Amino acid sequence: MAHELGIAVVGVGYWGPNLIRNFSLAEGWDLRWVCDLDGDRAARAVGKRSTVEVTSSIDDVLDDLDVDAVAIATPAHTHAELAIRALDAGKHVLIEKPLAASVAEGEKMVSVAEDRGLVLMCDHTYCFTPAVREIRRAVQSGEVGDLQYFDSVRVNLGLVQSDVDVFWDLAPHDLSILDFILPPGVLPTGVAAYGADPLGVGQACLGYLSLPLCNGGMAHAHVNWLSPTKIRTTIIGGSERMIVWDDLHPTQRLSVYDKGISLTADLDPKRQRDTLVSYRIGDMVAPALPEQEALRGVVGEFRASIVEHRRPATDGQAGLRILRILEAATRSFRGQGVLEQLEEAM
Amino acid sequence: MAHELGIAVVGVGYWGPNLIRNFSLAEGWDLRWVCDLDGDRAARAVGKRSTVEVTSSIDDVLDDLDVDAVAIATPAHTHAELAIRALDAGKHVLIEKPLAASVAEGEKMVSVAEDRGLVLMCDHTYCFTPAVREIRRAVQSGEVGDLQYFDSVRVNLGLVQSDVDVFWDLAPHDLSILDFILPPGVLPTGVAAYGADPLGVGQACLGYLSLPLCNGGMAHAHVNWLSPTKIRTTIIGGSERMIVWDDLHPTQRLSVYDKGISLTADLDPKRQRDTLVSYRIGDMVAPALPEQEALRGVVGEFRASIVEHRRPATDGQAGLRILRILEAATRSFRGQGVLEQLEEAM
Amino acid sequence: MAHELGIAVVGVGYWGPNLIRNFSLAEGWDLRWVCDLDGDRAARAVGKRSTVEVTSSIDDVLDDLDVDAVAIATPAHTHAELAIRALDAGKHVLIEKPLAASVAEGEKMVSVAEDRGLVLMCDHTYCFTPAVREIRRAVQSGEVGDLQYFDSVRVNLGLVQSDVDVFWDLAPHDLSILDFILPPGVLPTGVAAYGADPLGVGQACLGYLSLPLCNGGMAHAHVNWLSPTKIRTTIIGGSERMIVWDDLHPTQRLSVYDKGISLTADLDPKRQRDTLVSYRIGDMVAPALPEQEALRGVVGEFRASIVEHRRPATDGQAGLRILRILEAATRSFRGQGVLEQLEEAM
Amino acid sequence: MAHELGIAVVGVGYWGPNLIRNFSLAEGWDLRWVCDLDGDRAARAVGKRSTVEVTSSIDDVLDDLDVDAVAIATPAHTHAELAIRALDAGKHVLIEKPLAASVAEGEKMVSVAEDRGLVLMCDHTYCFTPAVREIRRAVQSGEVGDLQYFDSVRVNLGLVQSDVDVFWDLAPHDLSILDFILPPGVLPTGVAAYGADPLGVGQACLGYLSLPLCNGGMAHAHVNWLSPTKIRTTIIGGSERMIVWDDLHPTQRLSVYDKGISLTADLDPKRQRDTLVSYRIGDMVAPALPEQEALRGVVGEFRASIVEHRRPATDGQAGLRILRILEAATRSFRGQGVLEQLEEAM
Repeated sequence: MAHELGIAVVGVGYWGPNLIRNFSLAEGWDLRWVCDLDGDRAARAVGKRSTVEVTSSIDDVLDDLDVDAVAIATPAHTHAELAIRALDAGKHVLIEKPLAASVAEGEKMVSVAEDRGLVLMCDHTYCFTPAVREIRRAVQSGEVGDLQYFDSVRVNLGLVQSDVDVFWDLAPHDLSILDFILPPGVLPTGVAAYGADPLGVGQACLGYLSLPLCNGGMAHAHVNWLSPTKIRTTIIGGSERMIVWDDLHPTQRLSVYDKGISLTADLDPKRQRDTLVSYRIGDMVAPALPEQEALRGVVGEFRASIVEHRRPATDGQAGLRILRILEAATRSFRGQGVLEQLEEAM
Repeated sequence: MAHELGIAVVGVGYWGPNLIRNFSLAEGWDLRWVCDLDGDRAARAVGKRSTVEVTSSIDDVLDDLDVDAVAIATPAHTHAELAIRALDAGKHVLIEKPLAASVAEGEKMVSVAEDRGLVLMCDHTYCFTPAVREIRRAVQSGEVGDLQYFDSVRVNLGLVQSDVDVFWDLAPHDLSILDFILPPGVLPTGVAAYGADPLGVGQACLGYLSLPLCNGGMAHAHVNWLSPTKIRTTIIGGSERMIVWDDLHPTQRLSVYDKGISLTADLDPKRQRDTLVSYRIGDMVAPALPEQEALRGVVGEFRASIVEHRRPATDGQAGLRILRILEAATRSFRGQGVLEQLEEAM
Repeated sequence: MAHELGIAVVGVGYWGPNLIRNFSLAEGWDLRWVCDLDGDRAARAVGKRSTVEVTSSIDDVLDDLDVDAVAIATPAHTHAELAIRALDAGKHVLIEKPLAASVAEGEKMVSVAEDRGLVLMCDHTYCFTPAVREIRRAVQSGEVGDLQYFDSVRVNLGLVQSDVDVFWDLAPHDLSILDFILPPGVLPTGVAAYGADPLGVGQACLGYLSLPLCNGGMAHAHVNWLSPTKIRTTIIGGSERMIVWDDLHPTQRLSVYDKGISLTADLDPKRQRDTLVSYRIGDMVAPALPEQEALRGVVGEFRASIVEHRRPATDGQAGLRILRILEAATRSFRGQGVLEQLEEAM
Repeated sequence: MAHELGIAVVGVGYWGPNLIRNFSLAEGWDLRWVCDLDGDRAARAVGKRSTVEVTSSIDDVLDDLDVDAVAIATPAHTHAELAIRALDAGKHVLIEKPLAASVAEGEKMVSVAEDRGLVLMCDHTYCFTPAVREIRRAVQSGEVGDLQYFDSVRVNLGLVQSDVDVFWDLAPHDLSILDFILPPGVLPTGVAAYGADPLGVGQACLGYLSLPLCNGGMAHAHVNWLSPTKIRTTIIGGSERMIVWDDLHPTQRLSVYDKGISLTADLDPKRQRDTLVSYRIGDMVAPALPEQEALRGVVGEFRASIVEHRRPATDGQAGLRILRILEAATRSFRGQGVLEQLEEAM
């Protein structure tokens, strides 16, 4: 059996319990600590009859020499300080999205990790779902053809928050998925953000991001805290195949259409609708996907990157690319939707 | 039985046969002519054993004194000339969306109709569906509360056209529905358009419209000719109720949620996610809607407005408001998505 | 252009208008008469400006030498008399399901048609849908493997009728589809019927048919007039492939699963669930199906069988096989669900 | 805080881990033991860093005086022996469905529990879902009106088992739900079972149960191990309301229709379809249901019934009623579907 790495989970909010459960059950990990400012909450999270230690002090965690790595699931504005302290203490770091509250903070985190030769991994959980992995494979293998558009809808009745707007809360999911599946050389060249604050809480509660791609295509995300119905649907249009990913479908998450489009000249002068394009309608395939919890893949990749001394699939640089888009989106949103250029952003 | 009005259908493309069928069956209408540049197509459309006359010349139609009104379903760039000729011949006019190919043309059409005291009605068909009528009722009665957002998705694998882009082809549906249901005094203040032409056909094949509303909310439409899956879903968010309209659902088209949102102060300093809002989750009601073809309502309203000497529910002014948004959207799309102001547009 | 056959539609109830529309538009047919006991209804059905003749007397139709064929859409108890009169007058006959109100009547109809060399075709409309044709192809080509089961659900809020029960009203659809797709040599050996009459109207308003197949599989149908939700779903299980046909799905009507099942010995004595079977989970394919109205196929086949002097795909014998099952089902239902044997039934 | 009861989970197969997780987190329970013939499996189930004891010997569990109750999730044929041993050792018992492998065994278990004054509860988990509790409330309060039918479909690609057929594996769910929601005095009077074994494994892999109800209605269940698609839908038809429960719908599990049915005399002699019934079509309401894991309710009820010295909601008698139907179903299945009478069964 593989040598176990000691891990601590810091922050027991919405996501922390999932980290606790996965690190508890995963091969190669030994969950030693759960840390939260609210010690009672930490205790409840590990449950009765557990020998995992709980604390409200990060120092307890960082002082433990048997702790090899720390998983941080606290609010975004605390990420940089906690992560840098952990890295300084020689711990590898897995961090919730977004990487940090600003590009500047994120760059410092990446820099510290690189200097110390430690792993800094972003928990871009969706990138470890079987569906997104299959989309990435299909796009990057060329099966999909030229990427024409990426359209993502992520809406539900969510918590309206005071510290982050809906772009910073929800769009990191869509942007990290986009970042993960884009083929090499296809990058967003800018971002424009429209949104609204109809509750008057001081920040956008629903919004739309438009990202032109350098190949002539575009990406778009609709994020919304005020939707009565939950939608998690992404459409990827390509010149050869088109993919619909419905993350809420109980059985058929991924549908791959081989409907093609051919440019044709329409020579009939009497036709009232001058069609330039004809379609070959083909079959749809819903590929069989393994049933596997994405977070299990995250903790596996985190361990593998530590043991193999390599970058994880969703490293700090990936987190930084998302931050750069989010900061540009904030500027665009404040500037009435003007397109903000991204330089070498992704 | 009511006095019958003579009607002619001009243009037998995608929509014309639906007009022919509805005018044939409707009370109070006598379908006298079907006119198309392609006379054979006109003949096929009326079928064998019909006494409806067919012609490839609009003059035949306009010379017939028993023709009281003309329904025009030709390409948009021909609307203005045909409609003005018909109005000049003293015929009332029902016209397909969009009203015309430009605001200038549309204004002339409206002006001629007003000068001659004739009805100029836009066939904004969706406004006559039971679903949209119920949405309008719920919004304008105040049941929905403050309108927070209007989000419309209209995507499918459509015909890529040479004469109009996807905004002019599909968005008139969304914009006419928005125009119809907005409560008095709530107007879009501008429009921004993002889109892409990944096929390189010279115009947008997919696009997104963002329309800030003067009350702090916003409207948004996603229109797309290149989607493998067909989606026709509109979400209307209000401070009291939220409505989801899924036009493709075989039975449950409208879902009205009374999930409310209350602003609350979160006094717990230890909470990691400072929530400003709590939700009252309530029941959802799918109101029973009559089964009725929308176009039947259109031909009924067209007749009623002629007989009662009044404006139709979707008159030329409504068509003009849509045109003003479409022209501004075109400017925005060409200007990299800069928000174009709308002055008293809607 | 092909020589046109004269056709008359007899009976303008729920289905008649569909026959009228299809015969009007179809190549090779000339709709000459519409006949209904209620002459006004017949007139409304052809519409204004039609030269199709209307009558309330079947004699007018049968006396017209230019009428080659008659389509009968009257109540089932009138089928035999009308069909035999039409056949005696030398007309080919298309008849609504069920063929007749009893096996005895149906046998007489078949016999008369055969004696006179005329076509007697059952309008088993579903057999002409692209979905059912594809199912038949997949089953009869062997792709599906051994047919293990056929499960059909046909429920909605329907009209509760006085002259027929729910088995005779709805199950002819399911039974005609089953009859059409079964591979040669696979026959139902009996039928058992359970049902209920919770309204106390004197006959079953909901019911279940179980039909053991001679190959060890079984067929089952759930028919129900009292369901608040409409379901039209058929599952066909085979040893190699399984098919789900959802006739109400707006886009994906047919789903073909290549999930296979392999018998395996489970040698682990400690396992608590002794599994005999393991599954190979494969992809699902939704084949592209043409968009075509089924009734168009019916009128085409009716004409082709007349012109080519051959049996139609859904001939009187097919209708008789359905009647034999329906009569046996009635006996079973009255006999507390005892299985009624079918001899050479299908 | 409430006095904690000591609990042991016996049997770590498919369901055991869910019991372990729920007893671990529940208030008022102290999970002391996990027992499985395979000690390694037991150890894996509690995870590292747990102080819960594991054993492969039931004696260890029963000898522990701090164990107040035992939850048994072993194969059905071991239920009676294990439960009676536990009861004899003075432990309360929670047992997986079905209660036992035969009515005779079940009666003995119930008798022993009653003699010793101990709780014997069946883990009819579905009865503790918010959806089933709401259905029960709606039926038993009279809102639904007279119960006309109960139709349940429970199909998926499941494990084909050697020790139980599909009726004994899946139908206990449907039958326990039916038993739970039936209003007082409405009982099934018999059961007929049809099924098939198309794999030739020696027992039914798919089957249908028909249960006439004493009030003229009927219940029906379709259970199937060989379905490519997963369906978990129950329709409850009543004279006033109808309910559709779709357990797989991501958001709208329960739909309550107030479509009513009125008997009417149809006096029009010309109508071809003599309708006896007309419908009032009303709105549909999807009641807001709490999000709560059903098993949490089970462990809460188990504790409450012990502490309050009362019968649990799903007691041994309920389990016995299900067994009586299952045994009768087996007789019917072997007897070609003949209806087996149930005497005072439910």
